[in-house]
Amino acid sequence: MRTSGLPVLDKLINDFSKLPGIGYKTAQRLALFILKSDPDYVSELADALLSVKENTRLCAQCFNISEHELCSVCADRRRDGGLLCVVEDVVDVMAIEDSHEFRGLYHVLGGVISPLSGTMPDDLHLKELAERVQANGVREVLLAINPSTEGEATMIYISRMLKDSNVRITRIASGVPLGSHLEFLDTATIGRAIQTRRDL
Amino acid sequence: MRTSGLPVLDKLINDFSKLPGIGYKTAQRLALFILKSDPDYVSELADALLSVKENTRLCAQCFNISEHELCSVCADRRRDGGLLCVVEDVVDVMAIEDSHEFRGLYHVLGGVISPLSGTMPDDLHLKELAERVQANGVREVLLAINPSTEGEATMIYISRMLKDSNVRITRIASGVPLGSHLEFLDTATIGRAIQTRRDL
Repeated sequence: MRTSGLPVLDKLINDFSKLPGIGYKTAQRLALFILKSDPDYVSELADALLSVKENTRLCAQCFNISEHELCSVCADRRRDGGLLCVVEDVVDVMAIEDSHEFRGLYHVLGGVISPLSGTMPDDLHLKELAERVQANGVREVLLAINPSTEGEATMIYISRMLKDSNVRITRIASGVPLGSHLEFLDTATIGRAIQTRRDL
Repeated sequence: MRTSGLPVLDKLINDFSKLPGIGYKTAQRLALFILKSDPDYVSELADALLSVKENTRLCAQCFNISEHELCSVCADRRRDGGLLCVVEDVVDVMAIEDSHEFRGLYHVLGGVISPLSGTMPDDLHLKELAERVQANGVREVLLAINPSTEGEATMIYISRMLKDSNVRITRIASGVPLGSHLEFLDTATIGRAIQTRRDL
């Protein structure tokens, strides 16, 4: 492994290379960029890192990340509290918010049921989901869980858990992404798109 | 542009995306990793960032980065002070050190002569190179500058600058990299490798 001969730089390269998708070469390039960049930018980046850890927590209602007791979605009174969108992770909330197609509230599970990697139903915010559905006037639970094997299993688990609660349970459509080509798509997606075809 | 809805996270994403080769999507992934990672790691990374800016400077002799007045290479008495390797940048020192083939000292120019991007000879550590060659018992100056157009011009400039100094001036070989295939190499490299062929 190449070393810079400078302990202080090696330390930064080592810390950078712990970030996801950052190998040693990239970490070295980033560290040398830091070495040459404006001190104001570097102290800003250091502050931003610490600030994210210090000033964020999980929303008390939906487990989205938040700077306050309730996240910005839950705190927004214009949102439809009767429609709950269940997602795996905070990043999924961001992706859906960016589509501007959803005006309800979220419920972040914190993962999917995966016995192989040791994630059991009790490790997720499933109990809280059941409580929210019972307590509030929820009309519909929209499952926006990624359609992996574990995701499918989790959706089945949730639909069974909520089957007596008298709410409508839906899931987002699986199919051909807009702008993609059938020839490049996997057979499972094409098969699903054919099975779930709609009338025009 | 997608936003997280959290000013503190958006700030970190924005700061990360100023790093070279880090786009918005990667910056978002890194920021979410920070959000979920061990607080000790995050404060370590923040400290390492600040420490690199605070505790490094340029070596007074060769302009390599250093934690002290002299860098670890210049301070090493076992190195051959009669052999100077001229490189563009600190990263080149690291690359050459990693090869364990060079036991002399370095001289970091800080770039190459490039009138188009506004780098003139006075912007580089060329005067200091001439002074080092005159003052010390330098036998050989090895030019290890990247063989770009500007690099070639800089090597010609240096060889003219030092032509009366009675030192041997050499340059690292250009040619086919070990492990590569002729069929994938550019024609200029193949042409150079043929021109500079050696007797076996």
